[in-house]
Amino acid sequence: MTKASRYFPFLQWIRDYDGTVLTSDLLAAVIVTIMLIPQSLAYAMLAGLPAEVGLYASILPLVAYAIFGTSRTLAVGPVAVVSLMTASAVGQIAAQGTLDYLTAAIALALLSGGMLIVMGIFRLGFLANFLSHPVISGFITASGLLIAAGQLRHILGVSGGGGTLPEILGSLSGQFTAINPVTLAIGVSVLAFLYFARKYLKPLLVAAGIPARAADMVAKAAPILAVAATVALAAALDLGARGVALVGAIPQGLPAFGAPALSLDLLSTLLVPAFLISVVGFVESVSVGQTLAAKRRQRINPDQELIGLGAANIAAGLSSGYPVTGGFARSVVNFDAGAQTPAAGVFTAVGIALAALFLTPLLASLPQATLAATIIVAVLSLVDFGAVRRVFAYSRSDFAAMAATILVTLGWGVELGIVAGVLLSLLLHLYRTSKPHTAIIGQVPGTEHYRNIERHSVLTSPEILSIRVDESLYFANSRYLEDTIAKHVAARPDLKHVILMCSAVNAIDASALESLEEINRRLADAGLGFHLSEVKGPVMDRLGDTEFLKHLNGRVFLSQHEAVSALRDQRQPVMEKATIDA
Amino acid sequence: MTKASRYFPFLQWIRDYDGTVLTSDLLAAVIVTIMLIPQSLAYAMLAGLPAEVGLYASILPLVAYAIFGTSRTLAVGPVAVVSLMTASAVGQIAAQGTLDYLTAAIALALLSGGMLIVMGIFRLGFLANFLSHPVISGFITASGLLIAAGQLRHILGVSGGGGTLPEILGSLSGQFTAINPVTLAIGVSVLAFLYFARKYLKPLLVAAGIPARAADMVAKAAPILAVAATVALAAALDLGARGVALVGAIPQGLPAFGAPALSLDLLSTLLVPAFLISVVGFVESVSVGQTLAAKRRQRINPDQELIGLGAANIAAGLSSGYPVTGGFARSVVNFDAGAQTPAAGVFTAVGIALAALFLTPLLASLPQATLAATIIVAVLSLVDFGAVRRVFAYSRSDFAAMAATILVTLGWGVELGIVAGVLLSLLLHLYRTSKPHTAIIGQVPGTEHYRNIERHSVLTSPEILSIRVDESLYFANSRYLEDTIAKHVAARPDLKHVILMCSAVNAIDASALESLEEINRRLADAGLGFHLSEVKGPVMDRLGDTEFLKHLNGRVFLSQHEAVSALRDQRQPVMEKATIDA
Repeated sequence: MTKASRYFPFLQWIRDYDGTVLTSDLLAAVIVTIMLIPQSLAYAMLAGLPAEVGLYASILPLVAYAIFGTSRTLAVGPVAVVSLMTASAVGQIAAQGTLDYLTAAIALALLSGGMLIVMGIFRLGFLANFLSHPVISGFITASGLLIAAGQLRHILGVSGGGGTLPEILGSLSGQFTAINPVTLAIGVSVLAFLYFARKYLKPLLVAAGIPARAADMVAKAAPILAVAATVALAAALDLGARGVALVGAIPQGLPAFGAPALSLDLLSTLLVPAFLISVVGFVESVSVGQTLAAKRRQRINPDQELIGLGAANIAAGLSSGYPVTGGFARSVVNFDAGAQTPAAGVFTAVGIALAALFLTPLLASLPQATLAATIIVAVLSLVDFGAVRRVFAYSRSDFAAMAATILVTLGWGVELGIVAGVLLSLLLHLYRTSKPHTAIIGQVPGTEHYRNIERHSVLTSPEILSIRVDESLYFANSRYLEDTIAKHVAARPDLKHVILMCSAVNAIDASALESLEEINRRLADAGLGFHLSEVKGPVMDRLGDTEFLKHLNGRVFLSQHEAVSALRDQRQPVMEKATIDA
Repeated sequence: MTKASRYFPFLQWIRDYDGTVLTSDLLAAVIVTIMLIPQSLAYAMLAGLPAEVGLYASILPLVAYAIFGTSRTLAVGPVAVVSLMTASAVGQIAAQGTLDYLTAAIALALLSGGMLIVMGIFRLGFLANFLSHPVISGFITASGLLIAAGQLRHILGVSGGGGTLPEILGSLSGQFTAINPVTLAIGVSVLAFLYFARKYLKPLLVAAGIPARAADMVAKAAPILAVAATVALAAALDLGARGVALVGAIPQGLPAFGAPALSLDLLSTLLVPAFLISVVGFVESVSVGQTLAAKRRQRINPDQELIGLGAANIAAGLSSGYPVTGGFARSVVNFDAGAQTPAAGVFTAVGIALAALFLTPLLASLPQATLAATIIVAVLSLVDFGAVRRVFAYSRSDFAAMAATILVTLGWGVELGIVAGVLLSLLLHLYRTSKPHTAIIGQVPGTEHYRNIERHSVLTSPEILSIRVDESLYFANSRYLEDTIAKHVAARPDLKHVILMCSAVNAIDASALESLEEINRRLADAGLGFHLSEVKGPVMDRLGDTEFLKHLNGRVFLSQHEAVSALRDQRQPVMEKATIDA
C-alpha cells in the first residue's frame, strides 16, 4: 500500500475499474437513489430543517466519502439518530425555520467534520471505545422512541414539539379536537402500507414467482411509492386547502458552494454537541462498514474512516447540508444491490443532484404525514428491546449503564443521555476491576496444580499463604490487594511466607508497583517473606528495571509449585476444604 | 467480632485495658501533645484561620476518632495538605479574618464529615481508588511547594497571598524594601534550627550517649523549643512594636459546642471541595494507618475508617474546628512513643485542652515567622522528586498523569490539580487497555506449548490463525479485537479457522460478548470457523448462559494444543519466524 493510497483509498480500486464493475455500481446507485430521496427529505424534517437540506446533504458528502473513505459499500448521508441530535443541539440556540437555525446546522457539520479529521490525523479513534455496546444500543433504542414520538404530531396534523419524551407527550396532550382527519387518514394509511411492505411484501412477491433479490428491492422501494401516491393524491384533491400540512415549495437547483459566516461564539456553543455527534456517527458508521467489509473478506481502516467521514461532513457544511454519517439500512441496500466500489456513491450523488434539479417541483405537494410515517417505520426497527433483555441476563452492571442511558435520553434528551451512559459505564468498570477476584490456593494432591481452596480439596501449609489475583494490577485495585493481604496475614499467626501468584496479571502500573513495595515492606516488618510466582514475561521485563526486585524480601519463582516446594518446611501439609473468613 | 464492636471498635481494646497499657498511652500522649501544639497553631495559620481554631481541631476530633476509628495508633488533627485545601476552598467565598471565613471552614468540616460517614455506610471507600499513587504523590509534592512558597511572606514579614505559584510569587515581587529585618532574622534562625534538629540533632545526641529513642523524641520536640524561645524573645524585646507580626491574643478556654447557622447556598458551594478534601484526607489517613498497623500485624478496616474520620470531622465542625485527618508525622511519633490504643488520642486531646485553657496567654507573643518556619520544614519533607524520577523510569503514562497533577496544582490550584490528575489517569488507563497486547501464536516444536511467533521459532499452519489476547475483554478494547482479527483474516487468503486463546482473559463484559458475536458472524459469512481455547472457569460459566455459544461457528477447546490438533489438516505445519504486517 503506497502512502498516497493510504490517504486517498480510491487509488486502490480505481486502477482496476472496468465495465463490469461500472454496471454493478450504476445499478446499485439507481436503487439507493430511489431509497434516499424520501429518506433525505424525511430526515431533514426530523432535524427541523427545510426538506431540500436533506437532498443537499446527500450529494457532495457522498463524493467526499468516495475519495477518502475505506469502505467499498458504505452509503453516507443524513441518518435518523444524527438528525435527532442535530435538532436537539441546534434547537437550543435558534428557532426552527430561521436562518440562524440553518446556519447553526451547517456550523455543526463543519465542526463535526473538523473534529473527525483531527481525530483521524492523531489516531484518536479509540475515543469511540468509551461508548460501550450497551450504551450505544440503549441510546439508539431511546432515540428511536423519541423520534417516533416526535413524529406523531405530523401523523395527527397537530402542533407540538420538544426534545424529551415528557415534553413531546405533554405538547400533544389536550389536542384531540385539533386532529386533522385527512392528515390522520394519510398518515395511518402510509404507516400501514410501509409496515406491510416491510413485513409481508417480499414473501408475497417471492411466492408470486419473482426472484428473491428483485422482490427485496421492490419492497425497499415502498417509501418512494408512498411518496408518489400521496403527492398525486394531494395534488389531485388539493389537500393543502383542507388543512393537510405539505412540504411546500422546494427551491429547484443545486446548493451554493461555500461556508456561511460563523461567529466564534456559535462554534464554542456547539463544541460539545459536535463532539458527541462525531463520536456517535463514527461508531455507527464503523460498525456498519466492518460488517459489510467482512462479508467480502475486505477490511476498513478505522483511523482513515475518521478522515472519510470528516471530509463528508466538511462537504456537507460547504454545500448547505447538515451532519451526515454512514447509514445502516442504505448501506445494506447498496451492498445487496451489488455495489463494488465507492463509485456507486458518486453515481448516487449524481442521482440525488438530478432529483434536486428536476423532481423538486413535484415534491411541493408531498404531505408531511407521509414523511413522518416513513421515519416512524424506519426508526422503530432501531428499537431493540431484545438487546435490553439479553444484556440484563448477561450482566447487571452493563444493564445498569444501558438502563441509565435509555432513561436519561428519554427524560432529559440525547446529550445528557449519552454522557450519563458513558460516565456510568466507566464508573462501573472501575468498580468491577477495583475488587478483582482473588483466591487462596492450595495444591491439588498428587499434581503440580494449585486451585482455589474454596472450590477444591487441596493441600495447604499453615506457614505459607498463596494468593492468586485474577486481574491486572493498577491504581483502581492496588489498595484492595493491600487490604486483602493484610486481612489474611492478620488472621494467620503461624504464617511465614506470602506467595502472590501472578499468572493472570497482564500489567502492573506505577500505583500497583508502589503497593507491592508497601506490601513487601509491611510483610518484612512483620517478619514475613514475600514471593511472586508465574510472573508473565512482559511484566517481569518491566519489574526488572525497578528497585522493587532488589528490595523484595523473598524470591520470584517461575511456577507456583516451585515456590511452594522451596518454601515448605518439613511438616506435613494439611488437607483443607475451607471457607476463608471474609 | 460482635456487631457492636464492628461499629464501635473501641469495644475491642477497652476490656483488656490495664495499667501497663495506660502508662504507654499516657507517655505517648505527652510527647504527641508537645508536638501538636505548634503544629496546630501553624496549620490553622496556613488555613487562614485564627490560631486557636487549630487547637480546637485537635481536641474533640481525637476523642471521636478514638471511639469510631480502627487504627490503634493513628493521630488525627489538622494536617498541611488539608489545611491548604481548606484555605483554597474557603478563600473563594469569604475574606480571611471575617466571621464568614470561619463559618465556611466549619461548614467544610461538617460537610466533609457527613460525606465520609455516608461513604462509610455505603462502603464507597473504593472511590478513593481513583486517586492513583502517582497522582496523590504528585499532588502532595505540588502542595508542599505551594505551602512553602505561601509561607515565605511570613518569613520576610511582608504582605502577600494567592492560591497558585504564579499568584504567590507575583504577590511577593517588588516587596524587597518592605522586608522586616527582625522578622527575617527570626524566620531564618528558626528555619536553620529546625533543619539542623531534623537532620543532625538525633545523631549528635546518640553520639553523646543518649539512647536512640530518647534522642529521636528530643529532636521531634525541636518545634516546641523554637516556639518557647521565640515567645520569650518577642516578649522580652517587645518585638511586636518593631513590626514583627505576632500571633496576638488567643481566646483562653475551650471551644463552644454546637454548629453555626449554615445556608444551603454555602453548603452547595462547598460540595465539591468538601468531597475532594474527604477523599484526599481518607487516602492519606488510610495509608498511614495501614503502614503502622502492619508493623504490629494488626489491620484497619477502610470502610470503618471512613466512619471514624467522618466522626472526627463532625466533631471538629461542632467545636469550632476545621477539617482534620490522620497525619503522617504525628502518627509515627505516637507509634514510636509506644502508644498501644486510641486512648492515647484521648489523653492527647486532654493535653491540648489544657493548653487551650492555660497556655494561650503565653502564645500571644509568638512570632508568625516561627510558625511559618515550622510549616516550611514540615512540608518540604513531603516534596518527593525521587518519586517523580522513579515513576518516569517505570511508566511514561503514569508519569504524564503525575506531571499534569503537579503542573496544574502549581499553576491553577489544588482543586483543578487533583481533578486533572484523576481524569488524565482514567483516560490513560482506558487508552492502555483499549489496545491490549495480542500475539499470533504457534506451537513450540516438540511441545504442547504455544508462543508468540514474533519472539519464538514456532510451527504454524496456513489454515489456522491462533491469536492470544493478553487482557480482559471489555468495552474499551472490544472493537480493537474486531479490528485486529479483521486485519489478520484479510491478510491470509488460505485461512479456514481462527482460534482465540483466552488464557489471559479474566472477564468478558456485554460489549465484548457482542463483539465476539459479531466476529463470529463475520467469520461465518466469510466461511471461516471461530474457536475459543483455554477459557477460564468463571468466564465460561457466564458464557454458558448466552446465545453466543449456540451461534458459535466452531468449538470451545480446553487447551490450545487440543484446538490445533483437532483443526489441523493433513498438511505438514510450516516452521515460522515471521513478523506480522502491522
